[in-house]
Order: sequence, then C-alpha cells, then structure tokens
Amino acid sequence: MANDSYEKIIKGEGADSHNVDWKKLRTFCQKLFMTQGMPEEEAFTAADCLVDADLCGVPSHGASRMAIYLKRLETKVVNADFKPVLEKEYPASVLMNAKNGMGMVAGVYAMELAVKKAKESGSCFVFVNNSNHLGMVGYYVRRAAELGMLGFATTSAPPAMAPWGSKASFLGTSPVAMAVPGKNEPVLLDMAPSLVAMGKVILAAKLGSSIPEGWALDANGKPTTDPNEGMKGTVVPIGGAKGSGLSMFSQILGGIIPGAKYGPHVGSMWDDFVNPQEMGHLFVAVDISKMLDLDTFKDALEVMRGEVKGLPKAEGVSEIFMPGEIEQNRRKERQKEGIVFSNVVYEELRGLGEKYGADFII
Amino acid sequence: MANDSYEKIIKGEGADSHNVDWKKLRTFCQKLFMTQGMPEEEAFTAADCLVDADLCGVPSHGASRMAIYLKRLETKVVNADFKPVLEKEYPASVLMNAKNGMGMVAGVYAMELAVKKAKESGSCFVFVNNSNHLGMVGYYVRRAAELGMLGFATTSAPPAMAPWGSKASFLGTSPVAMAVPGKNEPVLLDMAPSLVAMGKVILAAKLGSSIPEGWALDANGKPTTDPNEGMKGTVVPIGGAKGSGLSMFSQILGGIIPGAKYGPHVGSMWDDFVNPQEMGHLFVAVDISKMLDLDTFKDALEVMRGEVKGLPKAEGVSEIFMPGEIEQNRRKERQKEGIVFSNVVYEELRGLGEKYGADFII
Repeated sequence: MANDSYEKIIKGEGADSHNVDWKKLRTFCQKLFMTQGMPEEEAFTAADCLVDADLCGVPSHGASRMAIYLKRLETKVVNADFKPVLEKEYPASVLMNAKNGMGMVAGVYAMELAVKKAKESGSCFVFVNNSNHLGMVGYYVRRAAELGMLGFATTSAPPAMAPWGSKASFLGTSPVAMAVPGKNEPVLLDMAPSLVAMGKVILAAKLGSSIPEGWALDANGKPTTDPNEGMKGTVVPIGGAKGSGLSMFSQILGGIIPGAKYGPHVGSMWDDFVNPQEMGHLFVAVDISKMLDLDTFKDALEVMRGEVKGLPKAEGVSEIFMPGEIEQNRRKERQKEGIVFSNVVYEELRGLGEKYGADFII
Repeated sequence: MANDSYEKIIKGEGADSHNVDWKKLRTFCQKLFMTQGMPEEEAFTAADCLVDADLCGVPSHGASRMAIYLKRLETKVVNADFKPVLEKEYPASVLMNAKNGMGMVAGVYAMELAVKKAKESGSCFVFVNNSNHLGMVGYYVRRAAELGMLGFATTSAPPAMAPWGSKASFLGTSPVAMAVPGKNEPVLLDMAPSLVAMGKVILAAKLGSSIPEGWALDANGKPTTDPNEGMKGTVVPIGGAKGSGLSMFSQILGGIIPGAKYGPHVGSMWDDFVNPQEMGHLFVAVDISKMLDLDTFKDALEVMRGEVKGLPKAEGVSEIFMPGEIEQNRRKERQKEGIVFSNVVYEELRGLGEKYGADFII
C-alpha cells in the first residue's frame, strides 16, 4: 500500500485492498462509538457522517478517523453524551452551546434546528460554540437540501495555512459548504480554501504515499512532496488573498461570533487529550419554497444542469460535472459495490474492534 | 496612457493623469444621473457607489462606467425612477422586484431592508429580481458592517468564465462579498471567483494596456495577454472546480432563486439597449449583537487582526493586510489627496458633461 498514490486510494485501487459493505461498516462504527458511552441514535449519526465520507470518496474524513475519535471519547476530552443548550434564540438566529460533545452530533442538531426555524421565519443562522471536529461538512448541507432548503455551513479550524503575505500557519483550512435541492440529487459544493484540505496530506502521510507538488509548503515555506513535511508546514490558499480571506471569514463566523476558538487557538485533535478543542461552527438554512415553488426551482436548476453538461468540453475532459456530482456518483456506486479500504485502515479498524470490544463485522 | 500597465493605473501613476477631488466627482456623477431622470437621492447613491470604487482602487467599477450607465438610462433600457416592490415578505426572507431600476439603488434598498429585518429577527435574506448591474458589491456589505451587521452579497452575472471541464463561457464572474464591523474599519472580502474580474480585462482593453498571462483565455481557450482577445474568451476560475462551483452558486442564489436571469441568459450591459438585463442579487444581514455584545466582538476581531499583522512575513512582503485593508487605506489617502484619472477616462467624463448638459466641475 505504501507506494500507492493518493489518487489510487481515492478510487479504491490500492494493493491489499478490502471491499467493505457500507451498512455493516456504519453499524460497526456505531457500535464502536457506543462502547464509549454515546447513545445509540447519536452514535448512528456520527457513524453515518463518517461512512458517508468514505462513500463519496473523501476517505480523509471517513472511518480512517475512528481511532482518533474513539481515543478522544475514551480520554473524555470529548463528551460522549450531551444535550446542546440554546444560549440565545431569535426567530432567525440561534447561539448553541454544544457542551463539548461530538461535532457530528452537534452539527446535525444545529442544521436541523436551522431548517425548522427557517420554515417559520424564512431563514436561520445557528452559531455553535464549545464543539469539536465536524467531519465532512458537506454532510450537513446535504441534509438541509434533502429537506428542501438551501443549506450553508462552515467551521473554525486549527491552523494549517498562512494568511496571504505571511509564511506562518495560522488559518484553518475551514471548508465552506453549500447545497440546494435538485430534481434527483442536490447541487453541493464543499470546498476547503486551500488547493487541497490538510486532511488529504494527513491521510497520505498515514499511508506512506507522496503528495503532488503545489499541495503543501514545509515549515520553511518551501514546496514539498513529503506529506510529513507538509504536515509541519502549511497548505496553499486558492487564489492567494481570496482563499486566505475566505478562511479568515470562516474563523470569524465559526470562531469569533459564536465565542469559540479559531485557528492557532484551536487545540489539536491529534495530540491534546486534556484541553477541549472549543471549536465553533455556523449552519444556515433558507426556505427556498417561500421565494418560489420548490418544483419550479428544481425544474430551473435542472435546465441549468442540462446547459452546463452540454457545453463544449475542454481538451482531455470526457464529462462536465455539476458541484457534488462526482461524489454522488461514487456514493451510489459504493452503496451497491462496496467501499474499498486499504489494508492499513482495514487492519486499524479490526484492531479498534478488539481494543474496544465491538464485533468486527465488516 | 496606452502603454501604462494596469498596475500603474490602479496606483494612479499613469502619464497624462488628472487629480480629481472625490466629492466634486461624486456631485458631477450625481448631476449626470439626474439629467437622465434619476431622483436626487437615488442619483447620489449610484454616484457614491461608483466613486467609492475609484476611491478604493477598483477603477473598473468606478466613474469609467458612467458612459455606459448613462447610455442605458438614456435609451430607457434601465428605469431611472422606480419603486422596488416586495413580492414576498417573511420575518427573515424577502423577494424584491427591482422594477428594472439601477442596480446600485436597488442594492442599497435591499441591503438596508435586510439590516432592518435582521434587527428584528436575527438575520434576513433579501433576494432581488428584475435588476441591473450592481457596481462594486463590496459597497453594500460595507454599509451593513457600518450598521453593526455581518453583511453578505452576491449577484448573477453575464457569462465570462467556463464551468470547470468546459471551454465555453457560461458562468458570470459573480463576486461574493462579506463584511463584519471592526474597531476602526470593517473586515471586508469582495472577491470574484476568477483570478481577476472581467472588469479588469475590459478596463485594460479600454486603456490599450496588456494584461498579465493567467488572467484570461481567448475564444479558443488559449492563454492571452491581449485584453481584446480575453474579452472574447473567458477568465480563469480560482482553484479550478472551486471557483467554478462558487460562481455556479452565485447564479443559483442571485439568479434561479429570485427568478432572475443568470450567466448566458443575462443580456449584455455593453451592446443591448433593447432588452433589460433581468439580473438578480442576494443580500444578507445578520445582527451580530444578538449573539454577543458588539464591542466584545470588535475587541476579539481586533485581537485577531493584531495576531495576523504580527505574523512572520513571506519573502518580499513588507506588510500583511487584513481583507479589505488595502482598499480602506487607498480610500483614506484618496479622500485626502484626490483620485488620479487617466486622460482617457478624464476626457470621457468631460465629454459626458457636454453631451448631457452637466457642468464639468472636476
């Protein structure tokens, strides 16, 4: 596996690979979470979010993170069982305290609250503090879209990127994600403000593969293809000042406004098991049907989709994809044909089953 | 002037230049708008938006556009005097019909409405249809920030960029702009989803200067340094699929949801004087003070600002700037020392004064 490229891993083409049924994987992850005191339903939510990342080809945010999430629950630096508290509540904005619980559980709770209130008011912003790593942020906005809403989400994040003009890691590679409901599938954009997310560099390091030049700079600000050096350095913002500015706003929206930590103040998920991360997030929902009939919207979006997919293709391109379409295709395919795991991740999962006492059913 | 670079023009260092007082310029533009039937207050708003672009170094969206705006009013393809109509209204969302009036007037109206309703509800989305070109979108979010709010805005726009995977112009280089109030000045990001806005290519063509490679592709999808060829082709999205996806969402939020036109369906501002553009926009305001005390927010933002500005600088960088800081510095400097216009733009303005009967007071 060590010599397989990241691209191969994404496609599930690595050597020594294992084909895994997604529902069994989800149940296994759920049971693992339950061993650490998470209630059944919350454990399902967290597992579903992780497995969905594997389904749509974002393995950096998938089951490869079970080990660290479990360790954080085991060391009680993250609360397994919690009830979010609404500290401020208005018709179209909420401040929610996630009581240092699992980010995925807090995220789903917050997004569903935003949707519920948007149904009344038209739109709603839910700012979240005292939370933890969210997993794949596209997961939450897809849920909003499936409920007929425009969904938006972002989060504060630990430092991984230098503000434009600096060479020091300060900004998080906080994703911004947005989605709208489509006739068949949502149109969904889930993007880090860097050319690639640090998660991809971390996974490459874990798998011993190299990274393409242009993904990351080392601690001295020099380009590197060694993911271990990249992890000590920074990733590169898209469009220079633009990607840098986007992340700055994610730290403001997900950090300063909810009263949470941002960038350099967010504790490491990987090696601090004493101090809570105190991350913050923002979830937004807008009720499209209050502006125009939802079917009319979906029809218009379908027209745009047809226009885009029918455009003349650039050289070497066989199909033009809408935002989120590649991931949706992968999800469908992998739900049918299984998720392919590298041996490294597969054996790690087996080890977690043994360590925490959950049947290894995958 | 023809041989001066775009960078020189931005800095007001071109040959044959004229130093202009911003308040006189604003009054001159206001009077010009009034010759075409715009009411005094609305004419002031439109002039203020244009002159603000010149003040902060975005001349592509400044007084260099007076000629085309006046021509559109003169030909009555844009309504000089209009009252926006609220077609749908909820506590936190509004659908507003701009009655084919000037985009700047509709934009300020919509943003102030969003602010007013956010004060009640916590947040508000105002979707606008039946509108026209907005000018510099940062103008509107700055106004929200000055009123103590988080402001966000975007717009549909005529085609200038190929969706990722295609070589055909389809997406607008729709800006997304966001701002929050600061202790002294707002933190403000106003970014096109392309490496540069098509407006910069258009201005370079007007001034007969070349453009840097990487800004634009010609009609065949090949890189070009000739702005005239670039105007026939496309600009390049930041981060590939990411910038492309951002623009797709601007077309959805500013086009499809409000029931306005987007991308290839938006009529040209430059050569169609019969069919209204039917552009759409989105303005969002969030009342930060409902989440935390506004001074506490500003203090925290000031801490972040200090942290960022104190980071180790990249090679060749003398100062690290917050989003919007360069523009704010330019505004202050030019309010004191004047705006420098190229002879081309200056003489065009003199000609407009003669043509439309407004005293050339600048």
